Amino acid sequence: MPGVSQRGIRLPASPIRKLTPFADAAKSRGMKVYHLNIGQPDLPTPKKALDALKHIDRTTLEYSPSNGFKSLREKLVGYYDRFGIKVTENEIIISSGGSEALLLTFLSCLDPGDEIILTEPSYANYQSFAVNAGVTVKTVTSDISNGFALPPVEYFEKAITDKTKAILICNPNNPTGYLYSEEELYRLRDIVRDHDLFLFSDEVYREFRYTDEPYLSALSLPGIEQNVVVIDSVSKRYSECGIRVGMIVSHNAEVMKTLLKMCQTRLSPPLLGQIVAEASIEGTEEYSKECFNEYLERRNFFIDGLNRIPGVFSPMPRGAFYTVASLPVDDTEDFCKWCLSEFSYKDEKTPEGFVGETVMMAPAAGFYRNRELGKNQVRMAYVLKKEDLARALTILEKALEAYNGKA
Amino acid sequence: MPGVSQRGIRLPASPIRKLTPFADAAKSRGMKVYHLNIGQPDLPTPKKALDALKHIDRTTLEYSPSNGFKSLREKLVGYYDRFGIKVTENEIIISSGGSEALLLTFLSCLDPGDEIILTEPSYANYQSFAVNAGVTVKTVTSDISNGFALPPVEYFEKAITDKTKAILICNPNNPTGYLYSEEELYRLRDIVRDHDLFLFSDEVYREFRYTDEPYLSALSLPGIEQNVVVIDSVSKRYSECGIRVGMIVSHNAEVMKTLLKMCQTRLSPPLLGQIVAEASIEGTEEYSKECFNEYLERRNFFIDGLNRIPGVFSPMPRGAFYTVASLPVDDTEDFCKWCLSEFSYKDEKTPEGFVGETVMMAPAAGFYRNRELGKNQVRMAYVLKKEDLARALTILEKALEAYNGKA
Repeated sequence: MPGVSQRGIRLPASPIRKLTPFADAAKSRGMKVYHLNIGQPDLPTPKKALDALKHIDRTTLEYSPSNGFKSLREKLVGYYDRFGIKVTENEIIISSGGSEALLLTFLSCLDPGDEIILTEPSYANYQSFAVNAGVTVKTVTSDISNGFALPPVEYFEKAITDKTKAILICNPNNPTGYLYSEEELYRLRDIVRDHDLFLFSDEVYREFRYTDEPYLSALSLPGIEQNVVVIDSVSKRYSECGIRVGMIVSHNAEVMKTLLKMCQTRLSPPLLGQIVAEASIEGTEEYSKECFNEYLERRNFFIDGLNRIPGVFSPMPRGAFYTVASLPVDDTEDFCKWCLSEFSYKDEKTPEGFVGETVMMAPAAGFYRNRELGKNQVRMAYVLKKEDLARALTILEKALEAYNGKA
Repeated sequence: MPGVSQRGIRLPASPIRKLTPFADAAKSRGMKVYHLNIGQPDLPTPKKALDALKHIDRTTLEYSPSNGFKSLREKLVGYYDRFGIKVTENEIIISSGGSEALLLTFLSCLDPGDEIILTEPSYANYQSFAVNAGVTVKTVTSDISNGFALPPVEYFEKAITDKTKAILICNPNNPTGYLYSEEELYRLRDIVRDHDLFLFSDEVYREFRYTDEPYLSALSLPGIEQNVVVIDSVSKRYSECGIRVGMIVSHNAEVMKTLLKMCQTRLSPPLLGQIVAEASIEGTEEYSKECFNEYLERRNFFIDGLNRIPGVFSPMPRGAFYTVASLPVDDTEDFCKWCLSEFSYKDEKTPEGFVGETVMMAPAAGFYRNRELGKNQVRMAYVLKKEDLARALTILEKALEAYNGKA
């Protein structure tokens, strides 16, 4: 019997899904589980976008162009312009979600043996795409004590070898919620320019920035126009993760030409998703404002609540809808597992029909290459409504008390 | 400025899209172009499936499970059973079209440096997925003179080295339309078993078999249950190529486990496509019969018509909706280009508003590794209605006359 591939074996398990069997078991015991572990927005998709689905008058659901519908790419030109990003529709390719955008970018720009630098903690699937592309990941570590800011330039200089081909950032950041300042982005610009590297910039959380500072995309950094490839997606901003529509944006014609060949190998991105995405881009300003306000309020409430729990520390994230917090436990993987398998909280507020309540969080070790670094940290997403976040905070506090034997 | 990857450079251009700029130019000159080059079915998607879209009552279009909806996989268990294929829903993974199914299968089962054997001519993107996976393609050549039957076993034995990890077949075949006999499949079974290889079987044209012989899937071959991975897709059978829903089916638990990890890296297959696909599987027997009859009639008409053109030879394909035919020209790439850029046919039947008419075909060299082998062949798909096929045949005959200077 032929065996699976080495890269298949090396592929890391998803840190946000790792504990799913424990959560499933808890639910089948009648537990209510508050999901702080996943980045699935709970907010509704814009009604305008859902309506577009109902009005599809096609009789054959045929292939769309490999680089996506021109009409969608044209609307995106206007969208990007609102963020100071000047691109043409030929500098945009539609992918099957941000995930495919990342894989195709890796395959188009990097060869086996090449090295890519990530800041850690980082989105765990970056590592998986690197494994699939045969690329070696080097990391520079950002620290919870200064809110996961950009690590010092010397750290990057130390990580760069003659095999380094790219730096990949996520801004605003998943999992930390960190938003790079203009100064930090210029520091990155200098590194990228001086070493002639690609800068892959994952900007899918662009709309969720809780600051008055003007927005700066990697695509707007002067002097590295040919080095930047932006990864983007409509998933988070319109609560439509399921439609699988992402974007790759670059001024580099050679990269775009290669990406187009990559895209032709898989024929086309999802037709129906593109129709939904196109309907989401214009006339949804009010919707976006409401989402933004909702996340902002949740962030303020949730982070404040976390820091009120004895021994818990969360920086105040300026973007996205995640935070990486430290907990007063030795090993968050053990603790998170324990929350799902042994802990149960119940009081008069426990909804009827449940035997108890608990929380599910993502142990942060999986977001680090050196897993020790995240051993007392968890990633949490505030994609629950405020009442549920409040309840989750109570339960987390009770769980920590019980776990640490103070109950 | 950093350069693109070597694999990006090596990626072959799509033989079916290569001439698209010439076709676009012809159309902008006012020409009517009959597209025999692409495998985009012209038949309508089942109404039942289109209706399912209009009745989506979700408020958030969220991620679906990484391996696809359970309800869809359960319906597929019943679908496969109708073809004598016994699988459970855990032996099925939903992918983003057959294309992603192929790429994920390659990544899960093959490592850089491994070799895979294809019969040629073969679907051109197999070569692209191999480039992306770092896998070396070896080919055994099937011959137009015996209708592109399975090459002799000795050819396979000669191609197998200690690096060979898999054989990939497409049955019924794109581009040739060839359908393997039971005897041929058992011959393949023996090779796969004796050398302990994977057998990847692309069966997306399963429903289009113009024969009374009982159906035999690679999954039903006794003795290699753990070796077979079937690639499948709803695209062609329900005329819904755009929804991007494919399937990977295998009894090999280790392969399925690895594939699931692969699938988690890209989060989920398209949500909306799965809803359409699920609505297509049951209650569409009448639809499938009509499609089948339509293709059967077209095949008989089109292949007969081709063979009536002096110097043209097409085998009678027993499956799919393609044929690879030889034309009385030295180089079909030159001829196909000429058809689009210099040739124009016009008579009283030319539809109003067009300055002339021509045909677009896919030069077959792109379906061979040794491009010389396909130099006088083209791939044509009968995905046009009969009147248009009749017209295309007339135009092809006139074009060949003119090209060969007999006009």
